Amino acid sequence: MTQDTNKNRQIVLAQRPVGAPDANTLRLETSDKPVAGAGQMLLRTEYLSLDPYMRGRMNDSKSYAEPVAIGAPMVGGTVARVVTSDVEGFSEGDWVLSFNGWQDYAVSDGAGVTNMGTDPAHPSWALGIMGMPGLTAYCGLLEIGAPKAGETVVTAAATGPVGATVGQIAKIKGCRAVGIAGGGEKCAHAVNELGFDACIDRNATDFEAQLAAACPDGIDVYFENVGGAVLAAVLPLLNPFARVPLCGLVSQYNATSLPEGPDRSGAMLGAFLVKKIKVEGFIVWDSFPNHYPRFAKEMTDWIKEGKIKYREQMVEGLEHAPDAFNGLLEGRNFGKLVVKVGAS
Amino acid sequence: MTQDTNKNRQIVLAQRPVGAPDANTLRLETSDKPVAGAGQMLLRTEYLSLDPYMRGRMNDSKSYAEPVAIGAPMVGGTVARVVTSDVEGFSEGDWVLSFNGWQDYAVSDGAGVTNMGTDPAHPSWALGIMGMPGLTAYCGLLEIGAPKAGETVVTAAATGPVGATVGQIAKIKGCRAVGIAGGGEKCAHAVNELGFDACIDRNATDFEAQLAAACPDGIDVYFENVGGAVLAAVLPLLNPFARVPLCGLVSQYNATSLPEGPDRSGAMLGAFLVKKIKVEGFIVWDSFPNHYPRFAKEMTDWIKEGKIKYREQMVEGLEHAPDAFNGLLEGRNFGKLVVKVGAS
Repeated sequence: MTQDTNKNRQIVLAQRPVGAPDANTLRLETSDKPVAGAGQMLLRTEYLSLDPYMRGRMNDSKSYAEPVAIGAPMVGGTVARVVTSDVEGFSEGDWVLSFNGWQDYAVSDGAGVTNMGTDPAHPSWALGIMGMPGLTAYCGLLEIGAPKAGETVVTAAATGPVGATVGQIAKIKGCRAVGIAGGGEKCAHAVNELGFDACIDRNATDFEAQLAAACPDGIDVYFENVGGAVLAAVLPLLNPFARVPLCGLVSQYNATSLPEGPDRSGAMLGAFLVKKIKVEGFIVWDSFPNHYPRFAKEMTDWIKEGKIKYREQMVEGLEHAPDAFNGLLEGRNFGKLVVKVGAS
Repeated sequence: MTQDTNKNRQIVLAQRPVGAPDANTLRLETSDKPVAGAGQMLLRTEYLSLDPYMRGRMNDSKSYAEPVAIGAPMVGGTVARVVTSDVEGFSEGDWVLSFNGWQDYAVSDGAGVTNMGTDPAHPSWALGIMGMPGLTAYCGLLEIGAPKAGETVVTAAATGPVGATVGQIAKIKGCRAVGIAGGGEKCAHAVNELGFDACIDRNATDFEAQLAAACPDGIDVYFENVGGAVLAAVLPLLNPFARVPLCGLVSQYNATSLPEGPDRSGAMLGAFLVKKIKVEGFIVWDSFPNHYPRFAKEMTDWIKEGKIKYREQMVEGLEHAPDAFNGLLEGRNFGKLVVKVGAS
């Protein structure tokens, strides 16, 4: 089932999941291709980004943003091409970074759409290393984490698009980079390909001891994107004046109730207090609305110089997006997860 | 029982408390007055500060600093007078800010001792509004909280030396100041004497609803010094990009085990994340070692201008320090708690 020039496939939210999304959560629908009116353009999706934050949008509570309505297509960042345009600055054939969501076609008035030109080198990278995940790593680490040379930076999900970038920037800044990932293959990739000083398998029975051994001078920056057991292992290793940029808690996104006690929230704050730790939550576009140009220049240079490597996992076909998304929440992806939607 | 010119009364840590300190925790001992040697001075305690952090020093775990040893006098900030001096810059009769601890006399080489001159206006204030608690309020609110005019600042322990100062500085900066305190008398004092816009009794059955009503535009800065139920009521009211300076968790200092579940630590982090909140623990002398001169000048001006008011609760006699300290942990004090130790 491939992209059609007349029909629009949409993956819509059929019902709100309780716990992990299942076969009833999303539904593939097909309708006529939409028509762009005056002052609008028609966009055709080439690549759809899958990201953990999307789980929050399935809930009926305001999280980062408004929930997706029942029956509406799932939201999502996309790389698309302009089919027809009555919007200044956009012409037929242009590549764009847009928010088409999980569907083949979308109509836009140009708001929030970035023109990538007619021949971008790696168009799908705008969804990863050159887009939201890369910017999240860059701003969270450098602006909140503020690592100094010689300090130890720890990141979970070390082969994901955020964690991998955090570790590699930490190395550029002269830090010790320690990753945490699920399984030996990912850990080997983090060390051998990405240049982490160490990467610990979070499934190892002696995970906590291995993490402590990999951080002989403690932890100065912990880039938090998973929460749960990983955070519990990190907390005792944090140094005085440690910084904790907090951009995600993927281990908890499918939780249906609070975990069993005891209640550790007070003890966690106590650790923040006595160690004089800063924890700062951030949503990159809200928190750092003006950082993209500087990021784009530095990141482009680092990639050219071979200092930053990037791994994508490309899934072929919009119809496979729901399964791939569940795998993302379970850590089954390996690298930045992108769905190839377009026929071209 | 008053201060003697030959004997040294000491209140020593007899055994580490489990939960609240009791009659077996501290013991009054009397020994000979110590003798200052070459390069030393003998200090006689006039005023002893009682502060919540002292509870942590009774434990056998490193918290802010090393624990007090069994049999050693309790640590504490003091205002004292120089009895004899072989230390440059200190003469007999000078008033000093020192760390004599809970005793009449101490020998010092001058390290960490500040000379207050021969005739300070309010010597005991160096333990409160002009000392550690005042500086804690000033740095925590202005450096971490960074309140903007029109924002809402909430502080617990609103009539304590830190909370009262936080609220009054918030008013100076054009903010809405909302206090939380234990009991109607303290709340009335916060509003009528200190100028808070509102103060909510944390013992009220509808405490959470009253707090929400007092913060119609949400909370932008929450100065955290108590934790527990107060924090739980504050969390849902925090605005996006709120700041939480964290200098104490007095509600938990006597806890012997973690509270019953569920475990709310992940949900708390989740709130920090989606609201893009910054939480930063700090210990004022560690975190802001160079801020005292600027603070002292501004605070002196504010007091002269009548913009900052200060309330002390003076307890007469070193032998009453243990009871007074327990009252502090239970919130029975009203204002900055100081023990008048000296005979003069």
